[in-house]
Amino acid sequence: MSFRAPVPEYEFLLNNIVGYEQVTESERFAEATNEMVSAILIEAGKLCDEVMAPLQRGGDLEPARLENGVLRTSPGFADGWMAIAEGGWIGMSAPEEHGGMALPMALTTAVNEMMSGACLSLQLAPLMSQGQIEALAHHASDALKDLYLPKLISGEWAGTMNLTEAQAGSDVGALSSKAESNGDGTYAISGQKIFISWGDNDFCSNVCHLVLARLPEGAPGTKGISLFLVPKYLPNESGEAGEANSLSVVSLEHKMGLHGSPTCVMQYDQATGWLVGDEHGGLAAMFTMMNNARLGVGGQGIGAGEGAYQQAMSYALERKQGRSESGTIVDHADVRRMLTTMKADLFAARAILMSCAVAIDMQAATGDAEWAARAAFLTPISKAFGTDTGISVADTGVQVHGGMGYIEESGAAQFFRDVRVTAIYEGTNGIQAMDLVARKMLDGGDMANRLMDEIEEQAERARATHPNMAESVWQACESLREATEWLVAQDRMNDRFAGAVPYLRAFARVLGGHFHLAAAMADPGGPREKLARFYITRLLPEHAALLTHAQAGADGAFALTLEELAG
Amino acid sequence: MSFRAPVPEYEFLLNNIVGYEQVTESERFAEATNEMVSAILIEAGKLCDEVMAPLQRGGDLEPARLENGVLRTSPGFADGWMAIAEGGWIGMSAPEEHGGMALPMALTTAVNEMMSGACLSLQLAPLMSQGQIEALAHHASDALKDLYLPKLISGEWAGTMNLTEAQAGSDVGALSSKAESNGDGTYAISGQKIFISWGDNDFCSNVCHLVLARLPEGAPGTKGISLFLVPKYLPNESGEAGEANSLSVVSLEHKMGLHGSPTCVMQYDQATGWLVGDEHGGLAAMFTMMNNARLGVGGQGIGAGEGAYQQAMSYALERKQGRSESGTIVDHADVRRMLTTMKADLFAARAILMSCAVAIDMQAATGDAEWAARAAFLTPISKAFGTDTGISVADTGVQVHGGMGYIEESGAAQFFRDVRVTAIYEGTNGIQAMDLVARKMLDGGDMANRLMDEIEEQAERARATHPNMAESVWQACESLREATEWLVAQDRMNDRFAGAVPYLRAFARVLGGHFHLAAAMADPGGPREKLARFYITRLLPEHAALLTHAQAGADGAFALTLEELAG
Repeated sequence: MSFRAPVPEYEFLLNNIVGYEQVTESERFAEATNEMVSAILIEAGKLCDEVMAPLQRGGDLEPARLENGVLRTSPGFADGWMAIAEGGWIGMSAPEEHGGMALPMALTTAVNEMMSGACLSLQLAPLMSQGQIEALAHHASDALKDLYLPKLISGEWAGTMNLTEAQAGSDVGALSSKAESNGDGTYAISGQKIFISWGDNDFCSNVCHLVLARLPEGAPGTKGISLFLVPKYLPNESGEAGEANSLSVVSLEHKMGLHGSPTCVMQYDQATGWLVGDEHGGLAAMFTMMNNARLGVGGQGIGAGEGAYQQAMSYALERKQGRSESGTIVDHADVRRMLTTMKADLFAARAILMSCAVAIDMQAATGDAEWAARAAFLTPISKAFGTDTGISVADTGVQVHGGMGYIEESGAAQFFRDVRVTAIYEGTNGIQAMDLVARKMLDGGDMANRLMDEIEEQAERARATHPNMAESVWQACESLREATEWLVAQDRMNDRFAGAVPYLRAFARVLGGHFHLAAAMADPGGPREKLARFYITRLLPEHAALLTHAQAGADGAFALTLEELAG
Repeated sequence: MSFRAPVPEYEFLLNNIVGYEQVTESERFAEATNEMVSAILIEAGKLCDEVMAPLQRGGDLEPARLENGVLRTSPGFADGWMAIAEGGWIGMSAPEEHGGMALPMALTTAVNEMMSGACLSLQLAPLMSQGQIEALAHHASDALKDLYLPKLISGEWAGTMNLTEAQAGSDVGALSSKAESNGDGTYAISGQKIFISWGDNDFCSNVCHLVLARLPEGAPGTKGISLFLVPKYLPNESGEAGEANSLSVVSLEHKMGLHGSPTCVMQYDQATGWLVGDEHGGLAAMFTMMNNARLGVGGQGIGAGEGAYQQAMSYALERKQGRSESGTIVDHADVRRMLTTMKADLFAARAILMSCAVAIDMQAATGDAEWAARAAFLTPISKAFGTDTGISVADTGVQVHGGMGYIEESGAAQFFRDVRVTAIYEGTNGIQAMDLVARKMLDGGDMANRLMDEIEEQAERARATHPNMAESVWQACESLREATEWLVAQDRMNDRFAGAVPYLRAFARVLGGHFHLAAAMADPGGPREKLARFYITRLLPEHAALLTHAQAGADGAFALTLEELAG
């Protein structure tokens, strides 16, 4: 059962659904024509299918390990990294002046997702570097950029993000890592960071850490934190990795999945670092990195879901059982329901993800605040719905396998274990939902309403050819609009927060209906239309219950005292 | 974070919600008064908290293993089994004449669920024995009963179920294991069985296998299979374990979870067995065993969910993060939403499970076909909703833990991995749903309608005190009735099957609303009422989308060709 990167799915989305034509029509991305995009996707697909997918199982069975302080990665991962690096896939969207290809994020997002389906634990390594490249490109000094970006982009060096501390997870402002000026333009960084993905490896000559820490005069909370670049080896005069910095990997976490990706506890003892962005301005730089990574993690969820889907489909086509037409379980109605649900949800999540990536590209191409607001609004939805979808698809994949799904040798369980973390890291999905209903609605719901205008405009156009589906999407959008009005009218934030997760999911459900409707219009009578009908008839209706929950407020959620809740 | 068996929850359910008073009022179970039940639950709770819960983690870290053909169980499991056996917990509901206590299944079900929360992988061992005891008590000859039941009930010997073969999972009729008469009243059994839970252990002097096999003249399919009792050691003349039978454990499966429970591939080579029930009548005997086990597995899901809930609650009460009232995450609205959802769903699933157990007891006490039909109808709902709830609660438990949820040391991940199998074994939840909409509706939906009559009658009574909740439950039940009418009108079975899983879940959602409403009436102004309002306002609405899906039919699910689905 070999993985096959979903290149045709991406071609369809880019050519028909997510407005990619605007990107190619821009001056900045004029070269990234659909033909070029196809060629790139096909090339990336080969890497996924032939190099990365064969590493998936070994990463699970032989996890990365720490031997006398030296990190040893899973079998073949070093070669996998080299292949990714040599293909130029790390720096696809990075600036050309530092060796990148300056391609649209839409393309990077597609490639990252395909790689995630092939081998999630390895794919996380270049994703971390991409986040660091983005942060440095936007916030670092020219000297730092010139020194670090070419090596990060080429894959000679790798990048990581060091945010979390034991007492500072979702509340990053609670961190206690310290930074002090050395008086020579460098800083001394001290503290312990946990949950550092790919905190070290044995295939790069340097590993560069972006570390959040507080300067002595930094205010408490998020306003007083600064971002520092702290390399494992200090660059020497020729810019190569030199003397070891005073930092170390203390231990690796024993995780439920994603075993190929070492999750490190990092210790910094007066390690030498360089400021990125302004003093006390760490949060802005961190958000650049986080937003990039959140989109990437949404894609990880979808990619892992795609892998799980392909494997379940293969199994269902081969597994003989019962008295169906073909003799295999794929002809059982309940199995068909499961497989079609998986496919329909993956399409919806992927379309949302890609429309977010297109908004990011249009923001970069035009500098237009509207595109920025759109990207900001779609990022938490892309992250949470992409990962929730990946998890539910992998769960269904286990179920399609029946008893074999619970046996590790089938691989279905690995997808399920691996993908589960994507709903947690880079901001839990609860944090994404709170971001959506609070920060992303500081405009009083204007951005949400403009998206809903689009959804209803398309639904109106679709009435001519797909009246039933169009009406369902239009009505769902009206319900979403009412719920949005209710939400923005709540001044007590907990009334929004208590229903934030159901609201985000409902928004994603409606967006999924919107994109499925677009697919139906693009493929009348074809498989896209059939899949859209399945989604809009059977899966979209979930939005109503979610919106009821979204508008139920905090009082009922807090009605039980803690004693009553625990009792 | 120690487990505390939910004894008060069971007392409330038995005293107020699930009609247990009818059981104590029957002649057969007159001794099982509420006072006696409380005393027994408290005693069982001690065993769960003090003996079984401490074994949970070790079962995961040091799985059962096979050493030169000898099965070695996880640390402490032998002592745990002895404690369960000595407490009389295996034979709680078994016939008194063979050493059982002849207590109601309601009580056994409660105790089993509590044990599942403490240590699921160990609890599966007595559950398997219970299924075997039930099957032998109903279908075996007196000689077999006299020989085997006392030892199974005392826990000196253990029992297993051998149904599945590599090519015969959900389609058990496809099995190829063979039986031939030895001419002396015994049979020679040959074949290989897979996925045999607790196929062996190192703490019983014998392990007795109930094996499905086909006699030479047995017809193909399920009608030609017979059930045999095949012990690991042949009983000698004094009835003790004697000479080894020709069967062996070939290997153990490497599973995603439930590591403490050895899942065996069993090989039978002309092993000596005794017929249980009639020749070619294996299916009836198997269903006795399966129905018992299905109820038990529903309880396993709920128990594991309870364990996950308690652990998440403990974590939320202790984990400091953010700027909430208490400084801990339990005061965050989204965390409170998660915890309250877990608690509300567990109550619903548990009430459904216990009402099924009560129906089984009333069937036994009265011989009334109505109770039998009720038990038969509620069994697949109890199994599927109990296990789905356990899985979703464990999943939410991981999420409450944030990053720590993905780290194995926290234990949240173990609940998630362990409970996942419960939706698969003893008939996948898809099989349960198909059973519900096909076999359990051979009466044209009469049983379903009688249950809905009860739901609506109670809702009418509740209007005086809880008008809004009553109306919500009543309306939901009306929608369920319409969907049921639609289902039974479909002659093409695939039209039922394509929506069977959503239909079962909707039925459970409505039943959950019914029992929550009963709880609100029993506890006006109290925590039960608050929890009921949360469920009925925020979770019950899901039924509508599920019922839409349930009535969508097969055509849309089969619209995509296999090439289109896979492409």
